[in-house]
Amino acid sequence: MAQLYSSMKPTPMLKDELDIVIPTIRNLDFLEMWRPFFEKYHLIIVQDGDPSRTINIPKGFDYELYNRNDINRILGPKSSCISFKDSACRCFGYMVSKKKYIYTIDDDCFVAKDPSGKEINALEQHIKNLLTPSTPDFFNTLYDPYGDGADFVRGYPFSMREGAITAVSHGLWLNIPDYDAPTQLVKPLERNSRKFYLPLKSLNNEVVLLYVDAVMTIPKGTLFPMCGMNLAFDRELIGPAMYFGLMGDGQPIGRLTICGLVICDHMGWGVKTGLPYIWHSKASNPFVNLRKEYNGIFWQEEAIPFFQSVTLPKECTSVQQCYMELAKLVKEKLGKVDPYFTKLADGMVTWIEAWDELNSPDGAEAKAPKGKDE
Amino acid sequence: MAQLYSSMKPTPMLKDELDIVIPTIRNLDFLEMWRPFFEKYHLIIVQDGDPSRTINIPKGFDYELYNRNDINRILGPKSSCISFKDSACRCFGYMVSKKKYIYTIDDDCFVAKDPSGKEINALEQHIKNLLTPSTPDFFNTLYDPYGDGADFVRGYPFSMREGAITAVSHGLWLNIPDYDAPTQLVKPLERNSRKFYLPLKSLNNEVVLLYVDAVMTIPKGTLFPMCGMNLAFDRELIGPAMYFGLMGDGQPIGRLTICGLVICDHMGWGVKTGLPYIWHSKASNPFVNLRKEYNGIFWQEEAIPFFQSVTLPKECTSVQQCYMELAKLVKEKLGKVDPYFTKLADGMVTWIEAWDELNSPDGAEAKAPKGKDE
Repeated sequence: MAQLYSSMKPTPMLKDELDIVIPTIRNLDFLEMWRPFFEKYHLIIVQDGDPSRTINIPKGFDYELYNRNDINRILGPKSSCISFKDSACRCFGYMVSKKKYIYTIDDDCFVAKDPSGKEINALEQHIKNLLTPSTPDFFNTLYDPYGDGADFVRGYPFSMREGAITAVSHGLWLNIPDYDAPTQLVKPLERNSRKFYLPLKSLNNEVVLLYVDAVMTIPKGTLFPMCGMNLAFDRELIGPAMYFGLMGDGQPIGRLTICGLVICDHMGWGVKTGLPYIWHSKASNPFVNLRKEYNGIFWQEEAIPFFQSVTLPKECTSVQQCYMELAKLVKEKLGKVDPYFTKLADGMVTWIEAWDELNSPDGAEAKAPKGKDE
Repeated sequence: MAQLYSSMKPTPMLKDELDIVIPTIRNLDFLEMWRPFFEKYHLIIVQDGDPSRTINIPKGFDYELYNRNDINRILGPKSSCISFKDSACRCFGYMVSKKKYIYTIDDDCFVAKDPSGKEINALEQHIKNLLTPSTPDFFNTLYDPYGDGADFVRGYPFSMREGAITAVSHGLWLNIPDYDAPTQLVKPLERNSRKFYLPLKSLNNEVVLLYVDAVMTIPKGTLFPMCGMNLAFDRELIGPAMYFGLMGDGQPIGRLTICGLVICDHMGWGVKTGLPYIWHSKASNPFVNLRKEYNGIFWQEEAIPFFQSVTLPKECTSVQQCYMELAKLVKEKLGKVDPYFTKLADGMVTWIEAWDELNSPDGAEAKAPKGKDE
């Protein structure tokens, strides 16, 4: 099994199979660096903040662009479930896409290099992660058994080697790690210096960063903080559960990711983390972040044990059903922690309703008002 | 918290805190390469096979050596729980040690090099793994948050950052991976060639192998195949659960490791895997291995689901109690799969009885008949 996969060439994915979703408030100059890797795919750009601002897109890319006015027009009152002034607005892109796979990346993420100095094709690695199985039921100490040159170690049950379908591929970051505001504040040097890098050097003598050459499956029943900065998933499988909640403007909270892990576990799908790396160019302002995050810091202490102990009833056989059930439980169990959770639960329900509306066979056709096909 | 630990220097451990346990059937020339790292520690050598054979130990090492006659004399009828003609005989060394920590290594494992070409002090990394906490309750996507330059990522609950006590550190292998016989048979090239290595080169132009620069905690509730080739643990905490079962001569099975993971989970302790690497010099014969393993290959399909679903009662508050309870459950639930499991369960009980006998305050003083203190 592992042999079969390890001899697989990275699959070139067709344009009609994957969309790239980018939340942004600025000109997308960063796309120049990604041109060789992204040019053949369709981009869905979700413009955050002031809708009257013009965003420049480098020539040659095939894209559609939505600003807040578009979101309001397309979703009507249901647009309340899409965050404003927060990169969680990217979720709108998941909703309007018609493709099987989504790759989403932040506009301050550049192409990273591997230790040999070669530019990393992040998208290709994500596709490989998604197209090979996961191993959520048993841990392989040599990491992804489906990777090149890897396999299952002795003692790995043969009946489990077929693995599970992979629903999510969570990539990592070089340069600026995804730290919370308090950690940013106590480690100011790590924002700008190379103090935290390993003393490894690549062939061309560039400094190689904290580069861990591994992909692994998150074991079943395990939660982790999912970051949307460099993330790919099978939209047809898990799309409706990839909602990032209500954050940003008008909300007392930012960056409490309500992830689809619980649902992946319930459905028997796998989630991978590790490769590929992207180069995260700049740390966000830790003081702004603290204001955004401080409620989440308190609340996650209540929310995490809730998500760790929650089990979904067998009757939930679709992602939508699972998500509605989770919304109900969030309201019931976390509503008493703070009224925000009641609002969040309502947002989750609205999100599913909007998803189903846009994605039903006779659903509204989302139109790209500033889109462009070249 | 992570900062506190990441600024920790690798702790030089005192001789009276750790023993190195080596199972062997041959002269221990491999120790020459380990001299700078092992010389200041005490070795417990468990001679397997023919007890009349003389094993040469390089000069300058402080050791005690036990052969089968010694084991029989010290344990009497209880010696039946110690495997013969299998490296699982190493467990006897765990039992006679009086130290807090154990490091065990196979005699075909040499010092590996990191990608910069530096020799890896495996023992130092194991000590670091054991002396820093684990994170079994929540997964950190940037791996060990207590490692140098690492930390908890955004979204990691602050209340969980203190971590859990680390009981076990499972190191990995370069060169010859720990594959089962069928995998060895279908991948003959991987036994001897470098075909499976990553195309990385170190500074001094040596080939760098499948080196993954990470330590991670096995999430709570997750099982993995624990290999005894390069393993360290806190003997005072988890020692009685580190029994490797009945294997080798007179047994229909080899290499079905019954690991202490279930007990670590129950006790709230962590288990780490990853760094350090050792260089595993030679693959064992896949044909011999197939004969040793074939029963285990069938049985693990039954045993693994059993261990995945087993829960220990709250009344079990010591490792010994947990282990006796597991022995009872193995007999009850797996005894019907094959009479071997009944025998194994009896062996587990005998093992605990022997452990308690040797380790009680007024217990028998294990004497090293061929020992030597230099």
